[in-house]
Amino acid sequence: MQAAVAVSEGTRINLLEEKIAALESRLAEAEGRLPDDRVTLMIFSGDLDRVMSSFVIATGAAAMGQQVTMFFTFWGLSVVKKSSEFRDKSFPQTMMALLSPASSKSLPVSKMNYFGIGAAMLRKMLAKQNVFSLEDMLALARELGVRIIACEMSREVLGVHESEIMDGVECGGVATFLADSLRSRTSLFI
Amino acid sequence: MQAAVAVSEGTRINLLEEKIAALESRLAEAEGRLPDDRVTLMIFSGDLDRVMSSFVIATGAAAMGQQVTMFFTFWGLSVVKKSSEFRDKSFPQTMMALLSPASSKSLPVSKMNYFGIGAAMLRKMLAKQNVFSLEDMLALARELGVRIIACEMSREVLGVHESEIMDGVECGGVATFLADSLRSRTSLFI
Amino acid sequence: MQAAVAVSEGTRINLLEEKIAALESRLAEAEGRLPDDRVTLMIFSGDLDRVMSSFVIATGAAAMGQQVTMFFTFWGLSVVKKSSEFRDKSFPQTMMALLSPASSKSLPVSKMNYFGIGAAMLRKMLAKQNVFSLEDMLALARELGVRIIACEMSREVLGVHESEIMDGVECGGVATFLADSLRSRTSLFI
Repeated sequence: MQAAVAVSEGTRINLLEEKIAALESRLAEAEGRLPDDRVTLMIFSGDLDRVMSSFVIATGAAAMGQQVTMFFTFWGLSVVKKSSEFRDKSFPQTMMALLSPASSKSLPVSKMNYFGIGAAMLRKMLAKQNVFSLEDMLALARELGVRIIACEMSREVLGVHESEIMDGVECGGVATFLADSLRSRTSLFI
Repeated sequence: MQAAVAVSEGTRINLLEEKIAALESRLAEAEGRLPDDRVTLMIFSGDLDRVMSSFVIATGAAAMGQQVTMFFTFWGLSVVKKSSEFRDKSFPQTMMALLSPASSKSLPVSKMNYFGIGAAMLRKMLAKQNVFSLEDMLALARELGVRIIACEMSREVLGVHESEIMDGVECGGVATFLADSLRSRTSLFI
Repeated sequence: MQAAVAVSEGTRINLLEEKIAALESRLAEAEGRLPDDRVTLMIFSGDLDRVMSSFVIATGAAAMGQQVTMFFTFWGLSVVKKSSEFRDKSFPQTMMALLSPASSKSLPVSKMNYFGIGAAMLRKMLAKQNVFSLEDMLALARELGVRIIACEMSREVLGVHESEIMDGVECGGVATFLADSLRSRTSLFI
């Protein structure tokens, strides 16, 4: 059968070399399009229950070896605030600051908040089951190398100064979020 | 060493050819399973703050070269309504229409709405920071080629007639959403 | 031209064999990183409208041949509860149980609930359009092989006993959710 083949072995080898080069470049292209071991969360909510959930997912994913990004936007910005300042704010920005939590300590719950009783109750229930507090969760996330980003646009719209944001938290825009999210195995909007 | 090999060079080439053919088909299969440069958003919420966030993500992703699909369902349907009509609606559908925004212009905010004061305030705050209005965002999204879909099932359940939906918005079901979402790098439920 | 090549055909074949072996292992590695035909939903919300939406997506995806996981956490836990028991609950857990739906039958809607009128209205509107009820959706999901998981941590924090959870629903933690989610084409937080 071999004898019946008209092309020489040299020619066949040439062809194989070409095919392998093509395969190598196609595979490199495919590898570049694979998701990384990465999880990206956009935390829009500023409700204690939802925010806690985001930290359980974030620290869990980091413990499983994923690179995790948490992008805090709009109401979620309160989570990475250390205090509220009232200078250099427009009237609506001041109203917003007065009605929003000054820091993670005063986040409400999304249901049954009853002027903070619900939030206090939830914190107690979590502590009783030895679940970390929100503040400990945030510290743990940072220890585990979770990237914490405060949304630049939300900060500007709400008139939150950079000095109101926790130290060591970077500011970034939607392009920063997307750059991580597009390479992630799992992205969630919380 | 070469001399010690029992198989002929022709046989070795045959084997290589087979292996390469197998690799090519495996790679083609893998390529077919890679995510596209695609972002798919399901907008369930009809709250101005969440909807604005979805448009920031959608237009940002489109500007970064992703193909973007926005699927508006349930309360989100208000975003792609141009008006409310009250003919041919059942009693609960009429109630729903009366209590829901007639178009994107009257979306509430998810917190601190205070009968629309919160929404008006947020619109002012966005404008002051030169953020596009929701209506401009929608126009920009369409210019950037974002695919805008109104959920067929929500439309029927809520009794929203096709004539109440903005021109140029297609209607589709969950299969339409999933077809895009399953091929996306990032899918979010907002 | 062929004559000008210094290396023997045997050497060239050796080289090709090495390259193919390298390609095979790289491709196997890439294949292991591809997403499965899989959709994973975390249902945090206990609102009828959002939960219905999650079932439409879940059953739609299952019908399209995806392996689907629904992970019910926090308020979403009510969906997979068959009843409320009040023994062995702390005071806040009892309060929470009193104020939360005892089962899927009494889920509120996220807006315009008006002490249950909104939920009843929505159920009627869905039935009129021949959309399955929530309970039928859940049964359908299970028939289609959707994996239903109750969040272990939420169960413990809220003091919900295993005997309050529907039969045949497994309990699992965030690692269980992530194991499925990281291999999914689409993951949503609802």
